[in-house]
Amino acid sequence: MTNPEPADRPSVLRDTDDEARKLARLLLQEARSVALATVEPATTGFPFVSRVLMGLDCDGRPTLLVSGLSAHTRALDADPRCSLLAGDPGKGDPLAYPRLTLQCRAVPVARDSDDHVRIRARFLRRHPKAKLYADFPDFRFFRLEPERASLNGGFGRAYVLDGGDFLYDSPAIVALSALEAEAIDHMNTDHRETIAAYARLYLQDETQDWQIVGIDITGIDLASGDQLRHINFEEPVRDVTTLRNAFKYLRTEEKKPPKN
Amino acid sequence: MTNPEPADRPSVLRDTDDEARKLARLLLQEARSVALATVEPATTGFPFVSRVLMGLDCDGRPTLLVSGLSAHTRALDADPRCSLLAGDPGKGDPLAYPRLTLQCRAVPVARDSDDHVRIRARFLRRHPKAKLYADFPDFRFFRLEPERASLNGGFGRAYVLDGGDFLYDSPAIVALSALEAEAIDHMNTDHRETIAAYARLYLQDETQDWQIVGIDITGIDLASGDQLRHINFEEPVRDVTTLRNAFKYLRTEEKKPPKN
Repeated sequence: MTNPEPADRPSVLRDTDDEARKLARLLLQEARSVALATVEPATTGFPFVSRVLMGLDCDGRPTLLVSGLSAHTRALDADPRCSLLAGDPGKGDPLAYPRLTLQCRAVPVARDSDDHVRIRARFLRRHPKAKLYADFPDFRFFRLEPERASLNGGFGRAYVLDGGDFLYDSPAIVALSALEAEAIDHMNTDHRETIAAYARLYLQDETQDWQIVGIDITGIDLASGDQLRHINFEEPVRDVTTLRNAFKYLRTEEKKPPKN
Repeated sequence: MTNPEPADRPSVLRDTDDEARKLARLLLQEARSVALATVEPATTGFPFVSRVLMGLDCDGRPTLLVSGLSAHTRALDADPRCSLLAGDPGKGDPLAYPRLTLQCRAVPVARDSDDHVRIRARFLRRHPKAKLYADFPDFRFFRLEPERASLNGGFGRAYVLDGGDFLYDSPAIVALSALEAEAIDHMNTDHRETIAAYARLYLQDETQDWQIVGIDITGIDLASGDQLRHINFEEPVRDVTTLRNAFKYLRTEEKKPPKN
């Protein structure tokens, strides 16, 4: 693998365009776990980095499920400022893989709130094994408010993004969230062949059994075993009555060359 | 995969024993890249996490090669406190994989020093592609002074370690480092069949072409393509005249069941 730019150098900062925003969001949308940096309360500001499971709220905000007994949770309780690194390296040069550093403030999710019901349901669809402990008394959800980010697209392509670049923008967010579980169940039960077609078209995969584990205004989350992939709709859903069309449109792409 | 303990919960802190120390060191010895958390100077202490390549000095201290233009280097210049996360997740539950959080202070390595010559050579054997940019004027090495660590062995096995647990202890460190390059060259040139036997015995691999890329008093680093593995000697080398015996002993293990 040739690397035209030194791997660690940020190089010329590029103008942040929609492609960069889409890649940055995708790194979150497809992340199962992230490295989370917090600030240790007991040592007046020593950084502490650990691995945590990550989810996404229906509006694009990252969510965490953490034990109150763990060091990162105690740190977040004392100082909500945190940073997460999304994008795991694979084979080859670890610095050739795109990755996202997202600076956030963590906000606790009250256990008896509507937010909690929604965030918990979305998180557990993404991380079904977390059902085993999500309701233990020491476990809590945080929602992260993105403040700013830097995207390294690999090969020295560096971009700076605003927190707002990660927030979904549509009047249909709440309405879609309300029918998300039912729509997922309907698709996974009655339209398995359609889901297989999405996997073939957008993930170039014909062998695995994919299931939908999330639907938001930007697209759908597909999971197979431990793999998590996101497929964007042609455009964000702005009216839930058009959701069916958004799904249909993905399928019509079957006649064209793949584009995602 | 069943997980008897909630994945994020530190569980009962175990007494730190030699097995835990060995695993913690191994996570560093086999790390190609780590998530590095630093403290942003411009925002009075916001944590910032990014991916960097990591090496090890001959005494076990982690080393970094970074561009002075990157955000983490500017942060380290202003505040040497940092934290690194070693241990990449693989297939399955990301929290079932062992991982190490190491709290360190970063010390710049002066470019014209003996330390620089040694650290650069060890780093570039581990990361040969970094030869392309290691000598660019904006690139610098840091050596990390470990202060303390937490090891999560997966499945809720949590341990606390001291910085000193990562420092190799032998009167032979300097002498072995002086002959390391020559010994590696000798082994890779004249004893390829022996290296293949090590891979077969300790890595359970017979198919790939492994090369030695590091020798220290604890053992040898083997690389094949982008894989990096560490094999421990039976015991730390305390006298370089016994290095040959340490290598021979590894081979005599061929008659016994594998133990590494």
